[in-house]
Formats: sequence, structure tokens, C-alpha cells
Amino acid sequence: MKVVVDAMGGDHAPGVVVAGAVAEARARGAKIILVGIEDQVRAELAKHQGTATLPIEVVHASEVVAMAEHTLTVKEKPDSSLMVGMRLVKEGRADAFASAGNSGAVMAAALFGLRRIRGVARPALGSIYPAAPAPCLIVDIGANADCKPEYLVQFAQMGAVYARVIFGLDNPTVGIVSNGEEADKGSMLIRETYPLLQASGLNFVGNVEGKDIGKGAANVVVTDGLTGNVIVKLTEGLVSFLGKLLKQELTGGIRNKAALALMIPGLILTLPGLALLYPTIAGLRKQMDWREVGGAPLLGVNGVVVIGHGRSDARAIRSMIRMAENSVRQGLVDAITTALAG
Amino acid sequence: MKVVVDAMGGDHAPGVVVAGAVAEARARGAKIILVGIEDQVRAELAKHQGTATLPIEVVHASEVVAMAEHTLTVKEKPDSSLMVGMRLVKEGRADAFASAGNSGAVMAAALFGLRRIRGVARPALGSIYPAAPAPCLIVDIGANADCKPEYLVQFAQMGAVYARVIFGLDNPTVGIVSNGEEADKGSMLIRETYPLLQASGLNFVGNVEGKDIGKGAANVVVTDGLTGNVIVKLTEGLVSFLGKLLKQELTGGIRNKAALALMIPGLILTLPGLALLYPTIAGLRKQMDWREVGGAPLLGVNGVVVIGHGRSDARAIRSMIRMAENSVRQGLVDAITTALAG
Repeated sequence: MKVVVDAMGGDHAPGVVVAGAVAEARARGAKIILVGIEDQVRAELAKHQGTATLPIEVVHASEVVAMAEHTLTVKEKPDSSLMVGMRLVKEGRADAFASAGNSGAVMAAALFGLRRIRGVARPALGSIYPAAPAPCLIVDIGANADCKPEYLVQFAQMGAVYARVIFGLDNPTVGIVSNGEEADKGSMLIRETYPLLQASGLNFVGNVEGKDIGKGAANVVVTDGLTGNVIVKLTEGLVSFLGKLLKQELTGGIRNKAALALMIPGLILTLPGLALLYPTIAGLRKQMDWREVGGAPLLGVNGVVVIGHGRSDARAIRSMIRMAENSVRQGLVDAITTALAG
Repeated sequence: MKVVVDAMGGDHAPGVVVAGAVAEARARGAKIILVGIEDQVRAELAKHQGTATLPIEVVHASEVVAMAEHTLTVKEKPDSSLMVGMRLVKEGRADAFASAGNSGAVMAAALFGLRRIRGVARPALGSIYPAAPAPCLIVDIGANADCKPEYLVQFAQMGAVYARVIFGLDNPTVGIVSNGEEADKGSMLIRETYPLLQASGLNFVGNVEGKDIGKGAANVVVTDGLTGNVIVKLTEGLVSFLGKLLKQELTGGIRNKAALALMIPGLILTLPGLALLYPTIAGLRKQMDWREVGGAPLLGVNGVVVIGHGRSDARAIRSMIRMAENSVRQGLVDAITTALAG
């Protein structure tokens, strides 16, 4: 199995992308094709020891679609890392594509390069939300700002396949984001989609409110790409905001500095306890950390495509590669194809 | 100044509503009309000492609109606490209306009982979001699940008046929720509203992403009621989820219990420091606590209406009463009327 990794994608490309790929190849023997401007990619590879013996290939792509460029720029740049990478998958020279680059452009490149699975009206972007006790897949989180009821039903079908194949759930529950639990709540789009989901044969549990997504109200939650995007970005912002707020407020001001200084002897005494507690704290951090999730799966195109966060560091790149491999291993694309043909 | 308080509204009515009203009347001499089923209200009043001398009146309303009932139930219950209360405001016998009851029903009662301000297409529900460094008003958070560009422009105008009059900001910034910062991002609704906001004379700062709402990206953020509702409920759910997760994970399992026991001597030593730190911790909790906010202002109807959280406790009821009084004192309705006539 080979994963194409877009060496030029992300805010810290190509440095962290190459670092992440090297780490995955070294740790697990992951087979990776780095696609991008060859000189730059090789210069980054040279910063790491012994990469010549790792299962990493480099494929040259002369163009780059920048983070802020318009989605359709991919049409004007047929030799971009995105388009070259998609062709490698299309031609069977690789099994999956992963990029932390411009999400809109990656989606457009996937659509042009790999085409849709037969019967799919609109590919959709999923996101694994850190719900407890079980993770939750939210679809769509940004590929389709304006949706029709039929699109949402397909998002639900594709999401349910993902939850079955990747989360390993027999009969995953499916909900739709709304502004109230009752069946008559929601926008016109939601109220029209509701009966279609009820009749879809999916394990539909009805409307899901914002406050219940994180509680695992459904294994798959469908919504239009605008609302889904706001949900995901709000969550990310809030988690980071709460952390910063706490840090900044607690360390600001003479009074608080004095308080913290006063606490030092006591805190030293708590160290053995803290050490015991550490796995739990680390687990909690991991659960809320998007770097561990791996990226957003693009559902509905003819190939495995994973889109990572623009701010990805090497750890996030590694998770993204593993997620792509896992989707190939579990036969995600075939499973969606079968589900939508049935 | 007199505030009508819906004694029958909220999950814990009439007990906590009466308790909150009594506390406000006692602490600040707030003049309150409790509207509801008189026997029940008087029975609750009797549980408190010396209420006979407090500036609290009781007005009987024989009907109640329950939390789960349909919005339009208010039409079939003209003697509900909601409709009776709105009439008190309409007839000038009170200055504002506050309820922690069924939000949809309160909005419908306000619309029927007080009517819209001339020129307002759709009243909208605001919510004060705990952004830092300055609070942010989000409009709409649930009154209008389906919106047109003109509605959003009016939400922005009314929200800007609120920010000027209540937050005391000279030229409040206004943003629109979208799935990207660039002007071409968003649903069709957002892309059509964008140029109208640019031409509105408001201090428009463009698209605001979910992750930036809490950072104070704009003083007023407009969105359709579906997205706004999801934002507010997601935030509430996430704050409570993070708290519970931390508590549950840290106190579960023998290992963690042993860890916490080990830390006790150290923690005792930190107590003097913690005491010094306490005001900061309390301030942080307060900032993230919806009970302190006061409720959601309904903008665009001919009178001050504040809708509290269904789960309101006596403290939340007190904040709601103060918010209603403050909106009257600052002349909110006249200011909106003038702004929309201009």
C-alpha cells in the first residue's frame, strides 16, 4: 500500500510534511510518495538521517496551489502537487491521497482527478468529532455550503458506511443537526430531509442539537457544509480559547503570581500523585486534540482522500497518513460504492 | 420601572422564578409583577419571609404554555401567563417582560401582543456570547431558521443598536458567520448578504469563522437562526462537557483515586495560594456561565422582552430581571425604532 502525500500542502509545508512522512516511514515502514517541487522536497529530506533506505519516493510537480487561492485554481494548474497526486491514485500507482493543503482545492482536484462514485450527487467532507463515549462523524463540514435534502440523505448513507467500516459499528445511529429535538424544528432543508432519512433504512435517531453532538447523540451527524464548518471551527476555537483563557488569567497580575508562588511547595508535594495521574491527563488532551484525529475524510469520490488541518504539525501529518492507510485497508471506497448502488 | 416576570416559565417554575424575583426585590427594591396561576404563585411567595412589604405584585393568568408545547399554542391560550404579561406591557402597566419559558411561545406572544417595530421584517433573538476581550452579540439564535438577506441586514442594524446602547460601544463592529474569511466564502444567503452589509453604513468587518467568534472578531455577529442556535447550544454543551469529562476522568479508576489521595498533603499546602487565586477562578467561571448573562434579548418587537434559559435557577432569573431593567433604562426600543426609521 502506498499513500501519496502532498508535500506542498499546509501552513508549514514542505518542512513538517516531509518530517511527518519520514517519521511514519521510519516507525512503521509506511510506503509514501511525496509529491511536490522536487528540489524543495529533496532539500527537506536531506535534513533527516538515512532517508535513502526508507520506502519514500519523490514525484515532481512543478506547480503549487497556495492556501489562500481559489478552489478552481486547480484547473489552471494541471501540474500542481494536487493534480499530479490525484493522477497517481487514478492510475493505480498509489492507493490514497493525503494533503494538509487548501481544502477547497484538494476537493476540486479530487473531483476532477478521481471523479465521483456512481450515483453520488455531491462528495462531502467528514470530520471525526471528539464525542464521548464514542466518536461521531459529522458530514458535511464544508464541501457544500448550500445543500438539498437528497444531498443530506447521501451524506448520511456515506457517513453510515464510514462508521461501520472505520469505527466498526454494526448499525450506526444517524442524526441531523437542528435547532430543537422535535421533528418539526429546523430550517426548511432540515424539515424536508427528516422524512427522507426516516424512510432511508438507516438507523435514524432524529434531530440533534448543538449541545448533544459532543455527548454522542448519534454516531453520524449530517448537516449542510456551512453549519458543519461552523461546528468544527467553533469547537476548535473554544477548546483553544478555554486553554488560553485559563493560562492567561491565572498567570496575569501580581496577586495571581504571588498565589502561584505560594502554591509551589504544595505543588512539589503533589508531584508523585500527578505522575500517577499523568496517563489520564494525557488521554484527555489527546481526546480533544485535532492533531491526533488524522484529518477529514472526503466521501463520495473514487479513491481515498484525506484532508488534514492547514496548521498540521509533523504529528498531525503522521495521523493523516495512518488514517488514509486505514481507509484503504478497510475498503472504504468499495463499501460506499456498494451502499449507494444498493 | 416595573418588570413583568412570567412565574410559570422555565423548567423549575414557579419555585425558582418566585425565589429569584423575591431576591431581586429584596436586594435592590426591583419592582416586579409576577404573572401566573395566582394560587401557585402566592404559595411560592409564602415560602419566603416578609414578602408582603416587597414591591412585588401578582397578576393572575389562568393558562400555562408548557415548555414542550408548540409555538402557536399561545394563540389558543389568550389567558396564558405569556399573553397576560405582554398585555401588561402593551397597556403601559409595566415596562418589560421576562420569561424563562418556551422560547418559541414567548416570541410568538411578543409578536401577537406587542407587534413589530415599524419596518422590522422579522424580530430576532440575540445572545450575549462570552467572547474575550469584549462580549459579542449573536443575532439570530433561533427565531428565524430560514432567513433572507434583508433579514440579516436588519439583524445587524438592531444588533449594532444593542451593542451601542447596552455595551456602550460607539461604532460597534459587525460580522457575518461564514465558513471562511474570504468574501466569496459562504452559502448563497451569506454571499448575497455580504454586499448589502458593506453598503449598510454599519461598521462591517466581513466574514467571521466559528473559531473567531469567541476571540471577539466582531461586537455583533449575524447569522440565520439555525446556525446561531447551533453555535450557542454547542458552546453551552462543550463548556459543560469539558467540565464533566475532566471531573469524571480524574476521579474514575483506582489509579486516579490513589493519585488524588497522594496529592492531598500537597494540595492542603497550596490552600493559601488557592485562596488568593480564588477571585480569578470565580471570575473565569462567571465569564463562561450563562446564568450570569441574563438571557436573550428579543429585538424588533415594540417592547423590551428578555428570554431566559429554560434551565434557569434563581440566580439566572435575577440576571434576567436586571437585563430587562437595563434595556428599558437605556431606551433600547426607541433606539431601534429610530435606527430603522432612519
